[in-house]
Amino acid sequence: MKIYDWHIAPNPRRLHIYLAEKGIRVDLVEVGQDDLTLAPWFRQKYPHAMVPMLELDDGTQIGEAMAIARYFEELNPEPPLMGTDARDKAIVDMWEKRANEEGMLPASELFRNTHPKFAERGLPGAADAIPAIPELRDRGRARLERFFTKFDRQLAYNTFVAGERFTIADATTLAAVDFAGWSDVKIPDACRHLQRWYDDVNQRPSARA
Amino acid sequence: MKIYDWHIAPNPRRLHIYLAEKGIRVDLVEVGQDDLTLAPWFRQKYPHAMVPMLELDDGTQIGEAMAIARYFEELNPEPPLMGTDARDKAIVDMWEKRANEEGMLPASELFRNTHPKFAERGLPGAADAIPAIPELRDRGRARLERFFTKFDRQLAYNTFVAGERFTIADATTLAAVDFAGWSDVKIPDACRHLQRWYDDVNQRPSARA
Repeated sequence: MKIYDWHIAPNPRRLHIYLAEKGIRVDLVEVGQDDLTLAPWFRQKYPHAMVPMLELDDGTQIGEAMAIARYFEELNPEPPLMGTDARDKAIVDMWEKRANEEGMLPASELFRNTHPKFAERGLPGAADAIPAIPELRDRGRARLERFFTKFDRQLAYNTFVAGERFTIADATTLAAVDFAGWSDVKIPDACRHLQRWYDDVNQRPSARA
Repeated sequence: MKIYDWHIAPNPRRLHIYLAEKGIRVDLVEVGQDDLTLAPWFRQKYPHAMVPMLELDDGTQIGEAMAIARYFEELNPEPPLMGTDARDKAIVDMWEKRANEEGMLPASELFRNTHPKFAERGLPGAADAIPAIPELRDRGRARLERFFTKFDRQLAYNTFVAGERFTIADATTLAAVDFAGWSDVKIPDACRHLQRWYDDVNQRPSARA
C-alpha cells in the first residue's frame, strides 16, 4: 500500500501526525508541485484530485484523511486515538468534526480566497474554475476567532482536545491552528488554555512528522 | 437519554434516518421554533447551539449528528451502517464525509446565504451576526452540481453510495439532496444513476422518519 501525499498540505498533515503517534510507517508518494497544483498524472489517476489518498494493494483508493486514519485504527487499535468505549469514541469524533468544520475548513476558506495562486481555485479538488470571493476573508477570520474561543474553553478543563489522552482530535486541531497561521491568523492572547495545549502538543515528535 | 432535535432540519434528519434503519428509539425534545431559531433555553443549556444533541443520563452532551450515530453504532453493531471490516469502514467513512462536505455544507451555504430569515446568520451555531454573502449562492450551486455528478458516477457502479449495502453514507446523501431541494436545486436529468438511487432510498420507511 502507499499514500499519495503533499507533504506541506494541511489535510495530509493531520494524517502524518496520526501515523506518527501510532508508530505506523507507510510509503509516501509526493504529488504536490511547486506551483501549488497537483501533478497531472495524479489528477488522472484519481479524479477526486485531493490529498491524501491511500491506495491498497488491491487497487482500492481511499480518500479523506480521517477515513484513511479509520482504516489504520481498525487494524491497529493500540494506542487508541479514536476513543475507547462508545461514549469516548463519540466525544473524540465530535471534537474531531468540530476541529475540521470550525478550524480546518475556515482556514482553507481564508487561505484559498486570499492567496493569488488560488484566484481561480476557490475550492479544493475542482478542475473547473471557481473564482475567489473576497468577502470570505472576513468570514474566514470570524470563523477562526470562534474556533479559537470554543477550543480555548474546552482546553480550560481538559489536557487534550477530547479529554485526558492525545487523540485524532488533537491532530486535526493542530493542523487547523497551523493552517490558520498561513494567513497570519494566530491564537489570540486571551486564549491561554489553547496556547498551553499548542505549546504541549508541539513538543511531541509527531508535530514534526 | 434524550436527543434535542429540530425535526425539519437537515442535520437531525440524517440521524433520524440512521436511527430508523437501526430500529433504535430515543426520546426527542423539539428545540426549533417557528421563526427558524433555536429556543433560548436550549441555547443557554448548550452554547454550541446546534442540533441534534444527545444528552446521556450522566449529563454528557454529544453534538454532531455523525458522532451521535457513532455512539449508537458502538453499542448496537447490527445491522452495520458504518461498515464491516477495516476497508469497508474506511470506504463508508470516506463517502459519508464527501456527502457532508460536498453536499450538506454547500446546500447549507446556499440556503443560509439566500433565505431572508438568515440575512444575519450566514453560519450555523453563531450568536453573533454573520452577514450573508450573495456570491455564495452561485458557489453553492456550483458545488452542488459537482456533488450530483460525483455521486452519480459512484452510483453507476454501486447499488448504494458506499457499496451494496445501505449505510450512514446514504443517510447523509439523502439529507443533502433534499436540503438542496429547499433552494430549488434538484438532481439534474443527466444524473440518472443518482435519481435511480434517490427513488430507491425514498421507498424505505426511514426516509419518512
